[in-house]
Amino acid sequence: MAPTTASQGFTLPQPLPLDGGQALDGVTIAYQTYGELAPDRGNAILLCHALTGDQYVASAHPTTGKPGWWERMVGPGKPIDTNRFHVVCANVIGGCMGSTGPASLTLDGRQWAKRFPVITIRDMVRAQIALLDGLGIERLHAVVGGSMGGMQALSLAANFPDRAERVLAIATTARHSAQNIAFHEVGRQAVMADTDWQDGDYYGTGRAPDKGLSVARMAAHITYLSEAGLTEKFGRNLQDRDAKTFGFDADFQIESYLRYQGTGFTQRFDANSYLYITRAMDYFDIAEEHGGMLASAFAGTPARFCLVSFDSDWLYPTAESRHVVHALNAAGAAVSFVELSAPFGHDSFLLDVPALDRVVAGFLG
Amino acid sequence: MAPTTASQGFTLPQPLPLDGGQALDGVTIAYQTYGELAPDRGNAILLCHALTGDQYVASAHPTTGKPGWWERMVGPGKPIDTNRFHVVCANVIGGCMGSTGPASLTLDGRQWAKRFPVITIRDMVRAQIALLDGLGIERLHAVVGGSMGGMQALSLAANFPDRAERVLAIATTARHSAQNIAFHEVGRQAVMADTDWQDGDYYGTGRAPDKGLSVARMAAHITYLSEAGLTEKFGRNLQDRDAKTFGFDADFQIESYLRYQGTGFTQRFDANSYLYITRAMDYFDIAEEHGGMLASAFAGTPARFCLVSFDSDWLYPTAESRHVVHALNAAGAAVSFVELSAPFGHDSFLLDVPALDRVVAGFLG
Repeated sequence: MAPTTASQGFTLPQPLPLDGGQALDGVTIAYQTYGELAPDRGNAILLCHALTGDQYVASAHPTTGKPGWWERMVGPGKPIDTNRFHVVCANVIGGCMGSTGPASLTLDGRQWAKRFPVITIRDMVRAQIALLDGLGIERLHAVVGGSMGGMQALSLAANFPDRAERVLAIATTARHSAQNIAFHEVGRQAVMADTDWQDGDYYGTGRAPDKGLSVARMAAHITYLSEAGLTEKFGRNLQDRDAKTFGFDADFQIESYLRYQGTGFTQRFDANSYLYITRAMDYFDIAEEHGGMLASAFAGTPARFCLVSFDSDWLYPTAESRHVVHALNAAGAAVSFVELSAPFGHDSFLLDVPALDRVVAGFLG
Repeated sequence: MAPTTASQGFTLPQPLPLDGGQALDGVTIAYQTYGELAPDRGNAILLCHALTGDQYVASAHPTTGKPGWWERMVGPGKPIDTNRFHVVCANVIGGCMGSTGPASLTLDGRQWAKRFPVITIRDMVRAQIALLDGLGIERLHAVVGGSMGGMQALSLAANFPDRAERVLAIATTARHSAQNIAFHEVGRQAVMADTDWQDGDYYGTGRAPDKGLSVARMAAHITYLSEAGLTEKFGRNLQDRDAKTFGFDADFQIESYLRYQGTGFTQRFDANSYLYITRAMDYFDIAEEHGGMLASAFAGTPARFCLVSFDSDWLYPTAESRHVVHALNAAGAAVSFVELSAPFGHDSFLLDVPALDRVVAGFLG
């Protein structure tokens, strides 16, 4: 759809309070919008992106030139119809696509690097709310997100219950499990094991922990796909060769594919951002923030909720969505829930699943 | 049980032919035995170890001092009863516990390192058979193994059908899946990304790719456990602290546990061996070796088979064992099969699962 445009930037007028106790000064939020804001400002949808996503939902990525990550869902006449809705998507704080993160400059003119404070999903949401305040959007038609985007949607509902009429949380969870944390820890250790990481101070040195970040991405990528999907797509097929080479080249298509995913990722993502954002996800536990009871987080919420899971998603399996639905039921909230069948694992929310299109369009009304 | 003893060594009298086309000269096999060999040599059991296992089945590991990896299964009066059976367990070729592998010296006095030929599971089995020949053991009472040990057991049955009366293959597969290959490729890339790997020539340099190998082990270790088991054992429990530190230390027990697994592993394992053995596993596909039909691999086999899987094993799930069982049925083989319920994931075969003890003892007769 639209050609690439440089993101708009909004600098928060107030320091951003963080769960870690600090307040972050001079935070900039880079964001994109699609569709017109109605005169009554009642048609805004906040879209929250996933771990390695960004604000380029429905416009080309400025680095890779690839289409936006949810072009199939967002646009004129699409399930999130920009002829009707004003879609706002902001790069999360801690990110590397224009919002303040570890690669941003501090007042001393150097990058934050590891001096950047560890943030949480709730901190990301606070930044989103501050942006909405700046844009004069008091009440969202909906907040929508998949994966980490869904975490933000749920966190927004829990912490700012009057700001969104509808909450659509796809392929997500209300807390990171031990296995979720474990995979992220592997990724972080892979980055930190890279001598080019230089304890985080690699900016401007001409060396970045690309190898470590690539390994981290490879490990994570496996968790985004299903075992059955991998078998169907790759099986034991060889890559551009008739026989095994008895060496350590990428003999198998799955090896070649993973290496491509790894190296491609390093060209568009900052390793320190990867550390900070995975940490925020691992810290995520809405119940813990609300006295240990997930239902308490949503007590008295006026919003309508829709939870969507995928049967092949083993990263945030259906049981995690069901756990949220039970809490919402206990809180007396209006909630609908559907588990969709799709072969793509966790990544199903980004891919061609027509049933998801119908659910999204139907819920947004 | 028995105190640590240095392994016995056997040097093959003939070059070892390899699937890659080479023949390996002067191969040494390091092995341990438990229990007496009967005068008629009819009570021998070949035990095959897993990826990071070794010949110290039921005696302390010489490096770590820890008990043997299957002490609960092997010993006097145990399911594999060394009062009755003569148990032989050899370090696989490509390994690092005494058998010829990448850390072994070649005739030029230098370590093989990356000059070591890429081997297969069948090559490992050829070495096992050569050892049995050297020991004068013509026919095994049984060949037994879990995980990669089970691959060897199945490969031995397929390629040397007259050498074992019984084949017990636990928590294993007849071929590595795309997801299996993917996880191993992550591990290899983690090792190779470590600048201390030095293209494999790290021996004697005072630097070894411990960081990369540790990351590889961490990623692999997650696949050995079940999601439910991780949640039950670790959940989101913090490690020796009352609150999150908002940093990158191991706040969570699961992080601390994984780091411990990673660093501990580097003290007992050679990184190049890890590359070679994972490669052998990824190449493993018994059907491919036999015209693409798994049943053909076992046509006319005189052996009795027993396959065991665990319901929480997502590395080699029950479907993989069932696939082997179907092929054995098609081949007219005598086969029994049981899926056991155990919470420990793939590692169940090493842990306290009394039902497994009964199956093993019963099958060995």
